[in-house]
Amino acid sequence: MTKHPALPDNIAYWVGVDGGGTHTRARIRNQKGELLGEGRAPGSNLELGIDLAQRHVLGAVRDAMTAAQLPDSALARMSAGLALASAELESCYRDFLAQPLPFAETRLTSDAFGACLGAFGGGEGAILIAGTGSVGLIFQGGRIRTCSGRGFPISDLGSGAWLGLRAIQQSLLCHDGILAPSLLAVRLLDHFGRDQAALVRWAAQAIPADYGRFAPWVFDAATDEDSLAQALLSETRDQLETLIGGMLAQGASQVALLGGIGERLRPRLGHLPLVTPQADALEGAILFAKRKELPCLHP
Amino acid sequence: MTKHPALPDNIAYWVGVDGGGTHTRARIRNQKGELLGEGRAPGSNLELGIDLAQRHVLGAVRDAMTAAQLPDSALARMSAGLALASAELESCYRDFLAQPLPFAETRLTSDAFGACLGAFGGGEGAILIAGTGSVGLIFQGGRIRTCSGRGFPISDLGSGAWLGLRAIQQSLLCHDGILAPSLLAVRLLDHFGRDQAALVRWAAQAIPADYGRFAPWVFDAATDEDSLAQALLSETRDQLETLIGGMLAQGASQVALLGGIGERLRPRLGHLPLVTPQADALEGAILFAKRKELPCLHP
Repeated sequence: MTKHPALPDNIAYWVGVDGGGTHTRARIRNQKGELLGEGRAPGSNLELGIDLAQRHVLGAVRDAMTAAQLPDSALARMSAGLALASAELESCYRDFLAQPLPFAETRLTSDAFGACLGAFGGGEGAILIAGTGSVGLIFQGGRIRTCSGRGFPISDLGSGAWLGLRAIQQSLLCHDGILAPSLLAVRLLDHFGRDQAALVRWAAQAIPADYGRFAPWVFDAATDEDSLAQALLSETRDQLETLIGGMLAQGASQVALLGGIGERLRPRLGHLPLVTPQADALEGAILFAKRKELPCLHP
Repeated sequence: MTKHPALPDNIAYWVGVDGGGTHTRARIRNQKGELLGEGRAPGSNLELGIDLAQRHVLGAVRDAMTAAQLPDSALARMSAGLALASAELESCYRDFLAQPLPFAETRLTSDAFGACLGAFGGGEGAILIAGTGSVGLIFQGGRIRTCSGRGFPISDLGSGAWLGLRAIQQSLLCHDGILAPSLLAVRLLDHFGRDQAALVRWAAQAIPADYGRFAPWVFDAATDEDSLAQALLSETRDQLETLIGGMLAQGASQVALLGGIGERLRPRLGHLPLVTPQADALEGAILFAKRKELPCLHP
């Protein structure tokens, strides 16, 4: 069996982990690059707490190990590339790596950089992820720059959470007679039993994912030719265009647009130099584990 | 001494209370309408909790009684008009009135209706309050309609809180190189020691008043000809125009524009039929106590 030249003797497996606010996914490959197994766990955004993030990262890896039929002892022979949301915040990054981890070696980066490495096969490039949140990243000249992505509501324009919030705001204005009647508004207010107090109580507890859950309602109502929904999608599209335009102005030549909102709005951004990603963020995380020359967020 | 014809024998004083999210104010007048005293307490928005709201309402009234040199026994001879934020939510309204209150009689309405009654001397009219939050109200044909005002971030467009949020959002985009450099962005980011993690931690705890605190920074930077700040003020102005336009479309003939943001943007809304209020919300609350024919929010 030929070994990868950079592979230390004690490493038999590569594991890539992609962790966001709601999901963590893990993928294990062997020395030859063959897929052994994949696993899942709840979110491991480092802002959710270092302990929780570590538990879910290990949960996803153990789930992948089960799928791969690997024994517990395999953990100590893994080289792990962890691409976790909020790793761009230095304190989160350092706190996470300060904890004992069971892998033979661990490299930590952000989910956005993992996605970028996946999208461009480890090469330089730029991505914009527009899902529940939004975050852009430019990897160029060996340097990483992050755009947006500091969380809802202070950041993350062009995201599903922001779109859902705007849908609720404008629907309330329709209900008040300030804006014209709208199918989307009727559906949203009906969802809350036409009870404003219920909506207010919901909002007092709502997290970004709760707002993001209404984003598909906007796409559906736009398909049904609701003009409010169409205006909201144009607004989101404009926000994505601003983000992509700003990344291009900083020297990105091509941008991979990812995430549920990004994918659905891509047809409306066809005039921009968008590219299809080569692979996913899990593959990017594995590449990050393998290639030690890839830049570290906090050297 | 001539008594007001509608004044019951047991009533010697009228007290008006105006309670919002951050402040509660009380004013006591005697049977002749003479001002006896005024008082203050922290916020009594009913959404902050019924007990807390009652404590702060009574705190403001007792503060006014101290100023008026009235004994404790005067409470039982007062007719109280309470104009409290969130009284438009039926459950809040009923829960508050279900508690024992020390006044001879108590009538509860919203801070917005109190402001409207004050602005139009008890007559019909329409108001838009744009302070930390925003709320519009139309009193017409004996009916009250509320617009916006369901709280940040699902409502309250055109408010200081929303303006502050947008200022932070766009400043982060300036910092990321997505938007052009801006004086406002530099000032805001310097305030957080140019530490994004500090800003993210602040946002995780921020309440609407925290966002609203940055609204004056936008006005200041606009005066200093910062184009981002000017764009943000135009955006807020447009939101107020949408709200006022919607109220006019519903039959309001004139609108009193109140609140710190409203007052500062009034010069930019000169093409709309805006009127100067006759009196404040405390006077409106006293009018509400006096005139039993004024409509109740939840009959």
